[in-house]
Amino acid sequence: MMKDSPAAFAQLPEPPYYAVIFSAQRTEGDQGYGQMAERMVELAREQPGFLGVESARGADGFGITVSYWASEAAIAAWKRNLEHQSAQAGGKKVWYADYQLRVAKVELAYGMRPEAEV
Amino acid sequence: MMKDSPAAFAQLPEPPYYAVIFSAQRTEGDQGYGQMAERMVELAREQPGFLGVESARGADGFGITVSYWASEAAIAAWKRNLEHQSAQAGGKKVWYADYQLRVAKVELAYGMRPEAEV
Repeated sequence: MMKDSPAAFAQLPEPPYYAVIFSAQRTEGDQGYGQMAERMVELAREQPGFLGVESARGADGFGITVSYWASEAAIAAWKRNLEHQSAQAGGKKVWYADYQLRVAKVELAYGMRPEAEV
Repeated sequence: MMKDSPAAFAQLPEPPYYAVIFSAQRTEGDQGYGQMAERMVELAREQPGFLGVESARGADGFGITVSYWASEAAIAAWKRNLEHQSAQAGGKKVWYADYQLRVAKVELAYGMRPEAEV
């Protein structure tokens, strides 16, 4: 089922801003993953400096989530968030077979329809 | 079906390097998309400064592909590649309902098992 609407796209300000690129291979079975993931997005949205998030995961369990932040300090604070730390521990123990995390400074951004209304 | 192997992960050098974060909503139907996407990865791997690529797309047609490059000049050259330009035009006309492209400098990277053998 395809979507026509761009609801999955983050609506971001002009660069510069920061991205956390989180790529991860899920273990088998849900084991509470869906609920945790939903809660983490909800919690992230409440954090100072959070700008938006985009996420995709294929049927093979490999997924990429990119969250966008106003500053490196905002990313560091999110990493230290206690409820997020608990989720990070669960990720290592239960939900992820492996992951990679990269922090990057976004310097340029453009879309297919740069003039489109948001 | 889940994978145990980390084959989907790019094997990258230590930062700094550059990332092209390409998020896109597919239109319905394949219309040659699969063949083009496979060819573009093959072509990208041949370009100077190409470091790796990771990609995920969900059943809703929203996907994220992150390609990694040694420099901004390598990214600019890839954007100008003639066969890639043809694919870009096809993307706007046929394959994508919408997309966003962001260029970022990766400053920090770590994995779940930083000591793991590659």
